[in-house]
Amino acid sequence: MTAHQTPAPGAGMDHFFLARGIAVIGASAEPTKIGGRPVHLLQRHGYAGQIYPINPKGGEIQGLPAYARLADTPEAPELALIAVPAAQALQAVQDCAARGVRAVVVLSSGFAEAGEEGAAWQAEMRDVALRHGMRLLGPNCLGTVSVAERAIASFSVALEDYYPQPGAIGIVSQSGNIGSYTLQLLVQRGVGISRMVTTGNEAEVDLADGIAALARDPATRVILCCMETCRDGERLTQALAIAREHQTPVLVLKIGATEQGQAAAASHTGALAASDAVVDAVLRRHGALRVRSHEDLVEIGQAVAQLLPHSLPRKPAVTLVAASGGFGIMMADAMSQAGLELPPLAAATRERIHKVLPGASTNNPVDASAQISSRPDILFEVLSALQEDPGEATTVLFLSLGLYSTRLRGIYLEALAQLRAAYPQRPLVIISRGPADAVVQIQALGIPVFSSIDAAARGLEALGRLASLLDAEQAPVASTSSTAARLPEDTFRTEYAAKQALIAAGFEVPRELAVQDADAAVQAAESLGYPVVLKILSEDIPHKTEAGGVALNLGDAQAVRAACARILASVARHAPEARLEGLLVAPMLRGGTELIAGISRDPVFGPVVMVGMGGIYAEVLRDVAVQPAPVSETQALAMIRSLRLFPLLDGARGQAPADVAAAARAVARLSEFACRHRDQVAEIDLNPILVRPQGEGIAILDALMVPVRPARTPDHESSHAA
Amino acid sequence: MTAHQTPAPGAGMDHFFLARGIAVIGASAEPTKIGGRPVHLLQRHGYAGQIYPINPKGGEIQGLPAYARLADTPEAPELALIAVPAAQALQAVQDCAARGVRAVVVLSSGFAEAGEEGAAWQAEMRDVALRHGMRLLGPNCLGTVSVAERAIASFSVALEDYYPQPGAIGIVSQSGNIGSYTLQLLVQRGVGISRMVTTGNEAEVDLADGIAALARDPATRVILCCMETCRDGERLTQALAIAREHQTPVLVLKIGATEQGQAAAASHTGALAASDAVVDAVLRRHGALRVRSHEDLVEIGQAVAQLLPHSLPRKPAVTLVAASGGFGIMMADAMSQAGLELPPLAAATRERIHKVLPGASTNNPVDASAQISSRPDILFEVLSALQEDPGEATTVLFLSLGLYSTRLRGIYLEALAQLRAAYPQRPLVIISRGPADAVVQIQALGIPVFSSIDAAARGLEALGRLASLLDAEQAPVASTSSTAARLPEDTFRTEYAAKQALIAAGFEVPRELAVQDADAAVQAAESLGYPVVLKILSEDIPHKTEAGGVALNLGDAQAVRAACARILASVARHAPEARLEGLLVAPMLRGGTELIAGISRDPVFGPVVMVGMGGIYAEVLRDVAVQPAPVSETQALAMIRSLRLFPLLDGARGQAPADVAAAARAVARLSEFACRHRDQVAEIDLNPILVRPQGEGIAILDALMVPVRPARTPDHESSHAA
Repeated sequence: MTAHQTPAPGAGMDHFFLARGIAVIGASAEPTKIGGRPVHLLQRHGYAGQIYPINPKGGEIQGLPAYARLADTPEAPELALIAVPAAQALQAVQDCAARGVRAVVVLSSGFAEAGEEGAAWQAEMRDVALRHGMRLLGPNCLGTVSVAERAIASFSVALEDYYPQPGAIGIVSQSGNIGSYTLQLLVQRGVGISRMVTTGNEAEVDLADGIAALARDPATRVILCCMETCRDGERLTQALAIAREHQTPVLVLKIGATEQGQAAAASHTGALAASDAVVDAVLRRHGALRVRSHEDLVEIGQAVAQLLPHSLPRKPAVTLVAASGGFGIMMADAMSQAGLELPPLAAATRERIHKVLPGASTNNPVDASAQISSRPDILFEVLSALQEDPGEATTVLFLSLGLYSTRLRGIYLEALAQLRAAYPQRPLVIISRGPADAVVQIQALGIPVFSSIDAAARGLEALGRLASLLDAEQAPVASTSSTAARLPEDTFRTEYAAKQALIAAGFEVPRELAVQDADAAVQAAESLGYPVVLKILSEDIPHKTEAGGVALNLGDAQAVRAACARILASVARHAPEARLEGLLVAPMLRGGTELIAGISRDPVFGPVVMVGMGGIYAEVLRDVAVQPAPVSETQALAMIRSLRLFPLLDGARGQAPADVAAAARAVARLSEFACRHRDQVAEIDLNPILVRPQGEGIAILDALMVPVRPARTPDHESSHAA
Repeated sequence: MTAHQTPAPGAGMDHFFLARGIAVIGASAEPTKIGGRPVHLLQRHGYAGQIYPINPKGGEIQGLPAYARLADTPEAPELALIAVPAAQALQAVQDCAARGVRAVVVLSSGFAEAGEEGAAWQAEMRDVALRHGMRLLGPNCLGTVSVAERAIASFSVALEDYYPQPGAIGIVSQSGNIGSYTLQLLVQRGVGISRMVTTGNEAEVDLADGIAALARDPATRVILCCMETCRDGERLTQALAIAREHQTPVLVLKIGATEQGQAAAASHTGALAASDAVVDAVLRRHGALRVRSHEDLVEIGQAVAQLLPHSLPRKPAVTLVAASGGFGIMMADAMSQAGLELPPLAAATRERIHKVLPGASTNNPVDASAQISSRPDILFEVLSALQEDPGEATTVLFLSLGLYSTRLRGIYLEALAQLRAAYPQRPLVIISRGPADAVVQIQALGIPVFSSIDAAARGLEALGRLASLLDAEQAPVASTSSTAARLPEDTFRTEYAAKQALIAAGFEVPRELAVQDADAAVQAAESLGYPVVLKILSEDIPHKTEAGGVALNLGDAQAVRAACARILASVARHAPEARLEGLLVAPMLRGGTELIAGISRDPVFGPVVMVGMGGIYAEVLRDVAVQPAPVSETQALAMIRSLRLFPLLDGARGQAPADVAAAARAVARLSEFACRHRDQVAEIDLNPILVRPQGEGIAILDALMVPVRPARTPDHESSHAA
């Protein structure tokens, strides 16, 4: 297999969306079959271009002339759908390449997800595609839909009953079923859709292609992405950057967030999964918004499309209104749990409301009483007052089941229509379960409707996060040269050597000395100054403390000598076969808070930097932050601040604040070190790092580095055939 | 105002539900008015008893003879609804009492929620009711509905369009709007309802009455309770105990869980709120299940009603099935995040599934592929295999939008009906958004349907919790005598005296000595043994460490003398006006983990015991557990085990496990102490408690007690008029 340039994310995707001429290879007369439904859908929904059913029997299929071979069509189709059994699909792909087809969708299953033979076919199809500059989607996918053009390259049964209106929301999904479900949910809500891309096994075209292509599509204003696994971290981040350039928000439903979910995903996709925490960090860093359910993906996605570009809430603040105090309390609970503020209303606002509703309580939440819906002008006046309140909070109106009453529905719709006309850009959302048609009417006014109080709280929190993600400057990414001098081999054998490597790289490590006997230890202690710490140096003793290989707080020569003897005796008992390199003499440092920092290797994103609170608390709580390396000092500082126990570093309970800036510098530096030495260093463990009071810097008290083991197969291209 | 025996929870409530003869005082000819709708509803829905409209104009109202005065009716009605303006309501209540009416519903508003005058009327109405053994509901409430009897004592507009079918679910709510909303949601789902009680201002009848009454009603199998505030903790716990005796689960939607929510609630109800954490603990202790949204209240409530008494899931384990791997992964994520297990299937089960679905993946989740819904017998076979799997997990089938297709709906309903007949007691739930009528059909088979994956995860977790709550023995409550010798006044002035009181009560406090000068301090130190701790004793210095009033780890006489001088000098600088009682000499103890424990006074539930991890971590994390006092040792141990950082006590990272049993004994003893001395002690703070290694007990290192301040008004009855 020869290597070919992989197309940049999104390149050539218009051949799927704007295809002039679509062939269906393995076409069937039966509209329910995988080879029949695409033909049926294209005709039913009025695709304007040529449709070429390809079937060895030729003749006529669903009223169209069918051709025995792709070569026989009058013109070369731009796009071909392949629906033949897996064993014949490779030939079909080759036929397409030979004919000059620009894009291929392999709908068939039976490839990498089925076994080795299928994996091999899939790898060859990819190769054919790359060689001919042809884009290949799938295999084992649900294809694409470009709504306005009626370019339906799919056999999705959802499109029988659920052909969408053209609109602003794009869908990119690995799983066809999940993408299709998302489409149906949107269509049920009356939301317009621009395009859908389902990537299946991702032999060639992947999620990044879908995201980048939809980001560049002027009709698509929001991208909903359903992600099971990320196979190529760099392509994903490139695509997210493109989306950000185009100011197109990307909402990601990432499944397989838990161990059990990932186990299920692994058996589903056969891919070695990236850590969910790392994917999460990548999404956040690149401005994508993660959601946790389909319901949120659809409701929040729709709200984003309605509110872009000028009406996204700018403040994490809400004003709550209901016709009954109890609902206001429920909203207050949910909103404050989601981190939103409930600022008080201005006096002028309260007076305006009291004028039309003398009995109302005008705190936040506003308890408007049933009178609020007695007449449209009352509702309009109350909502106008809130929209004009200088606090600029988002107005949230809870509707109970009012829309189910014909009389009330009329009142609400009239008032809301007037309100939207008067205040087109003020943030306002409604909470209502239904009925569906009334909800659609309100949404058509550009007012988001959430189906429950909890959904609204999650939605408003997400909208607030999105606004700040879009506004934030691209976080600077530290540049790292890709080559660096190799580290000496013993870097990986002892703490002392690891620390020497760190010192050479500019880290703050206290001066320490490695010695061979008690006399030298005493000399070293006098040189460094008492009190000191003594530690055994041996690559065969990873857990020094448990082996009795550490002595702390040795205050004089006698203590040092006694500790040497004790350590050597203990180590001889615990690990008689261990190779001993000597003893490490280090100053005994006090006064500070412990952090841990480290590097690990993610299967997809490469070097990952981690920082967490030190000590046993961190272990029990798992209070850590992770990011793909490298990170800047600013990003490192944000990681540290995000720790749940950060207040301990920030001066809790009368303690002096710690030198967090120095800790951030060390974490950033560590991440750069890991990138420079990525070919040699697999893992680094700095535990603990003592963070001293502000201005006094940090001290790395222990260090361990693990080398990269040589890979079994030299061919990294095989990752796509997994 | 004379005091009368308040009726036990639930007493006399049948006068609302089974009333023979209902009067409406302030009746109106207009069915949309508060005095008109009850008359309209009673007639419309076919109430079989006499309806007596009372209106000074007499004549005829809505086709019924109207009477100018209650006294004029041919027979005394058992129940009267009062709809006159607030200023006339007291007279109406008196008329009812005089006539021998057994129960009154005051629908009118304008009482305690409106101001002082209204509060006074409300208090007098209560008094009239108590004097005459008449139950009084409201004021400012939405009344009651007893469905089968058509006894509608309400003006709820929901009952116009949403009159329920009789069924097993009872609703008890303080807020009429929230109760009404709950009723409408249930009716929309086709769920039958037994009774609804809305208590409003709770002048006399309260939530506890509703719960107890519905618990005793044989037709009611599940109680849904919407709680804003608890005014009487003892009545609530009595009612929950009654529900438990009757094996009637109580699901509680408690609103006002957050600070903002409680602030809103306070302005809504005017009541001083109990701590949400304490209410939470009470609910759990008494077997009630707390839910967090209306959606959960209704979906889980319905599921409970369907599965009682034999089909509640007994294990927190699920088997997940979907027609597509992606949905299985999403379910796996949600279920495992909810704490449910995903056990593997038995080999025999997997074989059975493979026979009918050769392409299926039979891990857990089962990826059944679209074939599963191609024929009813395939679906039936797959589900049967799962229902018979020895793991006894709950089968969870995700339906995407299949029920929206007529063909698929038929297949699903046929298979599910057969399955229910074959396995009536095996746990099975469906996940489907809709459509509503198909969902109703499935639920009619006794199969719970949840509207989303997340709702199902929350629901299954709650059902599992409920099963264990119902099975659990009533946790033993330690008995405490209500009188105890008064504590000496100086108990509240110094640490030493507080500790003496604890020692007298049997707590483990290290032997300490209070001294007046350095010489005595040295003598004390020699008596106790070095090293020692020195602390200033002064009721004017609550934060001893910050004032420099503490010296630790003093190893000899010289150190003690120097510390005395230092402490006295520092205290003289920091708090020159402080009254000094002397110095406390205590042994310097090491080796253990710090806990904090304490007592506070909840406005509703009285003494509350708290335990938490010690040190600054506890402060930052707020890792505490609370329970109303007293608690047994078993309950105290459960509190300690529930702490997030409990692993630190349990022997994390090679440390020896701590004497948790001794800590639990101390917490239980503390709770009993607080109850015995509740008239004198308001708060206790034991911080820190050193929990030593297993077998070595605990040591209370510091103690503070705060006395009860004398109350301003001696009359505790006034709490109801707040």
